Amino acid sequence: MKILIVGASGVIGQAVAQELGKRHDIIHAGRNGRDVSVDITSIESIKKMYEQIGKVDAVISATGGAHFASVSELTPELNDIAIESKLKGQVNLVLLGMNYVNDGGSFTLTTGIMMDDPIPLGASAAMANGAVRAFVKSSSIEMPRGIRINSVSPNVLQESLGKYGEFFRGFEAVPARRVVLAFQKSVEGAQTGQSYQVY
Amino acid sequence: MKILIVGASGVIGQAVAQELGKRHDIIHAGRNGRDVSVDITSIESIKKMYEQIGKVDAVISATGGAHFASVSELTPELNDIAIESKLKGQVNLVLLGMNYVNDGGSFTLTTGIMMDDPIPLGASAAMANGAVRAFVKSSSIEMPRGIRINSVSPNVLQESLGKYGEFFRGFEAVPARRVVLAFQKSVEGAQTGQSYQVY
Repeated sequence: MKILIVGASGVIGQAVAQELGKRHDIIHAGRNGRDVSVDITSIESIKKMYEQIGKVDAVISATGGAHFASVSELTPELNDIAIESKLKGQVNLVLLGMNYVNDGGSFTLTTGIMMDDPIPLGASAAMANGAVRAFVKSSSIEMPRGIRINSVSPNVLQESLGKYGEFFRGFEAVPARRVVLAFQKSVEGAQTGQSYQVY
Repeated sequence: MKILIVGASGVIGQAVAQELGKRHDIIHAGRNGRDVSVDITSIESIKKMYEQIGKVDAVISATGGAHFASVSELTPELNDIAIESKLKGQVNLVLLGMNYVNDGGSFTLTTGIMMDDPIPLGASAAMANGAVRAFVKSSSIEMPRGIRINSVSPNVLQESLGKYGEFFRGFEAVPARRVVLAFQKSVEGAQTGQSYQVY
């Protein structure tokens, strides 16, 4: 398979690329992507990326930013960061990429545990995660040409505890290799409309 | 209690206003609201509404638009309708209204069954619903001054079958009075962070 990974240089993206790269062709995409660059907050940039790479069998999004702030300090403008990136960025990879995915191909998006198990400062990220999960479930029933779509909701990663641990006190961190399994199931399996919780 | 209902002229808004109006003061808001007008897609309009009405004990949102299209025909631009209205419109009623809600007051937002039980053409609305539900759950853990926040997810209403029935074939429509109960529980009860499913 030819697999596009957006966010290929992140902790999850790297781990997914390494595993799936053993038996598939990986296109590494990101803000300064190894193979192709894309800014997911820009419709034009997403369109240009797909025009550059042509048809693929799977699109994986392991990216998306959000502003972390308490709900008392969250403004509509700060909340837009998650909406433009984590939410619309990922949804637009699907809407604009539909015609670039081969029959029977797949999309796999990334959400996160804070939508189910809230953390302080996480309301905006949770909002975007909940949006992506619901979009995936609903859009799966009418994807054309047998194209599948799933999302993966990881817990905080053991590999990211140094960076994000303070936001996730008391969470039982998971190793990236467990999260990679969910991406394998989505890409190499046959399910659709799923939210794979790696908690 | 002084209760602001945004979308007070809709089927749900009217039913909620009628029931809660028996024992509380209702402020009817909407695009051409009886008491105050507001365009929830405009931050300025929301701010102006709150400045006009002053402090309240409860804010109910029974409003929010979305474009219905198959996921193959959904464009980023058409998807923005749900994002600007059903999603950001409702979330911004919370973010901008926080300081206008009295201690121990509440916000109640509206989602919908299609996020759990997908319908054709409903991916954009489902996305917005999922976002609102997750925002509510997450923001509830850090709302200031004992302010509570819940959302209500109605099935298609018996009263709306003439208008929306074709989108919800096979759904067991519920009467508006059952949906009103969920709003009562949110406003007059003491729970927070809940998604009340009226399915």
